[in-house]
Amino acid sequence: MSEASEQNPTPAPEDNSEQFSTMALEAEGESEGGKKMSKKEAAKLDRLRKKQELKAAATANSGAAAPASEDPLAANYGDVPLNELQSKAVTGRQWTEVGKLDSGFEAQTVLFRGRLQAKRGKGKLAFLVVRERGFTVQCVLNVKPDVVSPQMVKYATALSTESIIDIEGVVSVPKVPIESTTQKVEVHVTKIYSISNAEPVLPVNIDDAARSETEIVKAEQAGEPVIRVNQDTRLNNRVLDLRTPANQAIFRLQSEVGMFFEQYLRAKDFIALHTPKLMPGSSEGGSAVFKLDYMGTPACLAQSPQLHKQMAICADFGRVYEIGPVFRAERSFTHRHLCEFVGLDVEMEIKEHYSEVMDIVDELFVSMFDSINKNSQKQLEAINRQYPFKPLKYLPRTLRLTFEEGIKMLEEAGVNVDPLGDLNTENERKLGELVKEKYDTEFYILHRYPLAVRPFYTMPCYDNPTYSNSFDVFIRGEEIISGAQRVHEPQLLEKRARELGIDVKTISTYIDAFRYGAPPHGGFGVGLERVVMLFCALNNIRKTSLFPRDPNRLAP
Amino acid sequence: MSEASEQNPTPAPEDNSEQFSTMALEAEGESEGGKKMSKKEAAKLDRLRKKQELKAAATANSGAAAPASEDPLAANYGDVPLNELQSKAVTGRQWTEVGKLDSGFEAQTVLFRGRLQAKRGKGKLAFLVVRERGFTVQCVLNVKPDVVSPQMVKYATALSTESIIDIEGVVSVPKVPIESTTQKVEVHVTKIYSISNAEPVLPVNIDDAARSETEIVKAEQAGEPVIRVNQDTRLNNRVLDLRTPANQAIFRLQSEVGMFFEQYLRAKDFIALHTPKLMPGSSEGGSAVFKLDYMGTPACLAQSPQLHKQMAICADFGRVYEIGPVFRAERSFTHRHLCEFVGLDVEMEIKEHYSEVMDIVDELFVSMFDSINKNSQKQLEAINRQYPFKPLKYLPRTLRLTFEEGIKMLEEAGVNVDPLGDLNTENERKLGELVKEKYDTEFYILHRYPLAVRPFYTMPCYDNPTYSNSFDVFIRGEEIISGAQRVHEPQLLEKRARELGIDVKTISTYIDAFRYGAPPHGGFGVGLERVVMLFCALNNIRKTSLFPRDPNRLAP
Repeated sequence: MSEASEQNPTPAPEDNSEQFSTMALEAEGESEGGKKMSKKEAAKLDRLRKKQELKAAATANSGAAAPASEDPLAANYGDVPLNELQSKAVTGRQWTEVGKLDSGFEAQTVLFRGRLQAKRGKGKLAFLVVRERGFTVQCVLNVKPDVVSPQMVKYATALSTESIIDIEGVVSVPKVPIESTTQKVEVHVTKIYSISNAEPVLPVNIDDAARSETEIVKAEQAGEPVIRVNQDTRLNNRVLDLRTPANQAIFRLQSEVGMFFEQYLRAKDFIALHTPKLMPGSSEGGSAVFKLDYMGTPACLAQSPQLHKQMAICADFGRVYEIGPVFRAERSFTHRHLCEFVGLDVEMEIKEHYSEVMDIVDELFVSMFDSINKNSQKQLEAINRQYPFKPLKYLPRTLRLTFEEGIKMLEEAGVNVDPLGDLNTENERKLGELVKEKYDTEFYILHRYPLAVRPFYTMPCYDNPTYSNSFDVFIRGEEIISGAQRVHEPQLLEKRARELGIDVKTISTYIDAFRYGAPPHGGFGVGLERVVMLFCALNNIRKTSLFPRDPNRLAP
Repeated sequence: MSEASEQNPTPAPEDNSEQFSTMALEAEGESEGGKKMSKKEAAKLDRLRKKQELKAAATANSGAAAPASEDPLAANYGDVPLNELQSKAVTGRQWTEVGKLDSGFEAQTVLFRGRLQAKRGKGKLAFLVVRERGFTVQCVLNVKPDVVSPQMVKYATALSTESIIDIEGVVSVPKVPIESTTQKVEVHVTKIYSISNAEPVLPVNIDDAARSETEIVKAEQAGEPVIRVNQDTRLNNRVLDLRTPANQAIFRLQSEVGMFFEQYLRAKDFIALHTPKLMPGSSEGGSAVFKLDYMGTPACLAQSPQLHKQMAICADFGRVYEIGPVFRAERSFTHRHLCEFVGLDVEMEIKEHYSEVMDIVDELFVSMFDSINKNSQKQLEAINRQYPFKPLKYLPRTLRLTFEEGIKMLEEAGVNVDPLGDLNTENERKLGELVKEKYDTEFYILHRYPLAVRPFYTMPCYDNPTYSNSFDVFIRGEEIISGAQRVHEPQLLEKRARELGIDVKTISTYIDAFRYGAPPHGGFGVGLERVVMLFCALNNIRKTSLFPRDPNRLAP
């Protein structure tokens, strides 16, 4: 709660239109403050909470589950017993998706299933908002002889929000367009059944979880009670949190990103691989690995498909990719690290130069961004409503700077930086700003990194072994992709591994793979969560991981 | 070696055509007998091996690496030093794929990179077979002033097979079509460079690894020395083994199967999920799990995405799929079990009946099989050459039998079977035979399994809780898919888990997911390796796993 809310204790405006506003129901739910609240506010929320619990208890005892038997219309509403939902019959009834309901259905009877997102009763009248996969429609129950009984209206308003309900009703097109739902039509309910009742008190209300920071601040300034759901509460109740429009959009977008990645690469003759995640040694050495016992043998989880994707190149697959989990047992408590994430990995033969790999990165991501901006407008809008962001600036052909050029830009800007060390997060951000200023892009490639800061399998530059044929790619000042030409010569590979203190015995099958003829090759790896996070300028990678795993979190 | 080979000690026929036969080189390599060989045969192979090693040693010392400096054509051949392959320059040279070389290139100079698959020198003439991604082309070096020197021919024939080489040459269309290569043209070499030399003695020769059982038996019967590469040798040297045409085809086919799966489901509004593989408890109870330490907390690897894909349904994603690794710490030493495999998982809301899930299975797989048969002919032919199989018999609409009907068929055939137990492998095979006989299909669905043999989350039948709303799908008498309607009601779910002895505390976040409104839903899981194995009637799942993991194998 901001301090401003104490100064403007304006009560929430009364809803006085026939159109139903979900805002009116917002103040319910558990208090989760990202900021501290005053005693007065705490007391207010406490009262709200008690009121909500009493209401819920009343609902639970009101016999909402069983429609009054004396009602001649009793068959038109009620809770469907489990037995009826155990694949009892195939009726052939036609179902309509909420997202497809439009004026084309005017005066027609439709049947759909969704969640009761919000409800409001007004005597003989009830308004419900029903949601299916992020789409919402307003449903009206109006007492009418032989169609809707007062008991039916009572049943509907007593249902707990987030319950799964079946609605049968007639579509009408209201004169004043409905603003609060995604669908602009209204459904006049003739039948309503609950398929699965939600518990009356939810640990997180979807409206609270869906509220943008702007709305929260505005409400606080207006002195209205408002709940800010913090991240741990969201993640502890991820199944509820994921129902918000922004989260629905984030994971639908992520699915589209993955599919674009695959389709682009397949059009370029890449094939999908599935490499093992159970490994005898540590896959790359260095960073911490999860260790386990494999039938009595020490094993670990792959930190990347690096070794096996290169072995697939030695096995003549030419161009390969993999989408799969990678595991890092690092105690990194940052906004951008996870202990398990989805790796998008690519490996390919190169004829002459690692720029062939950068060409793939360049075209793949530029065309992906174009495709998202063109085809995923609905998702971007939904994300933007809760987490406003500016569209990513990128060039039709991606800017490529050498590491030395990057260092020079930083030095000219007065930054003290080791010319042969790795860039720290702060300097990466700073360089991102300088690049944006100079080249008007937030997506660029930095290549020819110092060899010392890259893994042992990185190919040194032909002209100067201090540098390497490697690159990182940045979005909005953060590293998102790492790639390089690899050492394909077994003697040099073994030497490099030794120099970096790796026990070559543990990777002997990998090194041996290069002894029987190995083409020059290179590749790159991307974290799927980072692509979506940075494209949408989200501030935490946990927002783009379905069920995130970090050093403190292994559930749900 | 079969006994027949002793009776027909016919020597290998001499190659006496200009066309190069790879068969002539076949007898080289390490002896790996699936059967025992006679002393005489062993001695013969030993002599062969020694001859090969001497030859290899001679090659290594012959200065093949450095063309004679006195040759004015020295620049046209030789080993490319590593320095030249470290992304020195982008020349803009045009590369042609071996698989694209055809008569359209007649009289043109082409440049390509591939492996030296086989070679034969004949004085001033040398024939090479060059392979790229399974495609092969014959290359000819013929001494000619100002173009090909005798040293160049010598250099070419001294190269070790499986080396990566660059060839520049002129395409010609021979009068007699070339039978032994996939490409029907010939390339008259003008330049030849080795990019990466294979070690002269390979642990497995590709020709040996590529030979079909029919060819082996034929050679044995003709008394020719022939090598049968056993499975462990193949898997120990997987990078070489994967280069055979059959293996190239198997994994390209597998990639196509995965893509078809995704594209079909996306067209039906499914989205791709990525659920965590690191779990706090055992994901399904029962079968053995891999345990590990997660930052001081006991954890395990997911045995399937079951719990999280269902939670995604509770989180409003409606229809989801996942392609990802699943882990089973079972000591199963069978032809069809792995400790890590690729799961194709699907979960979806159902409106009325689990037949909605079976409908997806049915249409998905029938259209997948149609697509493979139509679009993957080249892969099927390559697999067929080494592992002959009959095309899968399946119906346009998949046969669905109830478990009770299956039991009845088995009983009528005189099989003694527990009507409420699970089918063992033998009875599954037997039923497969009976179904094929009666319905002329090797692909069918068996549903309404006894509840007792299914996991706790399986929905019991509405009319008889002894049975469940579940199904298995069979190909060629082996189970390939398991699916069911799930229990979406938290009380029943908890009760069923307890009944099966599962500690519900370990799955509390899963059970809680159903407390806030859960739609009826169902889904299924398939092993990608099994799809390819059974479609192609391969006899071991290790043939369709890129780098298999079984109780005895954690490498390479």
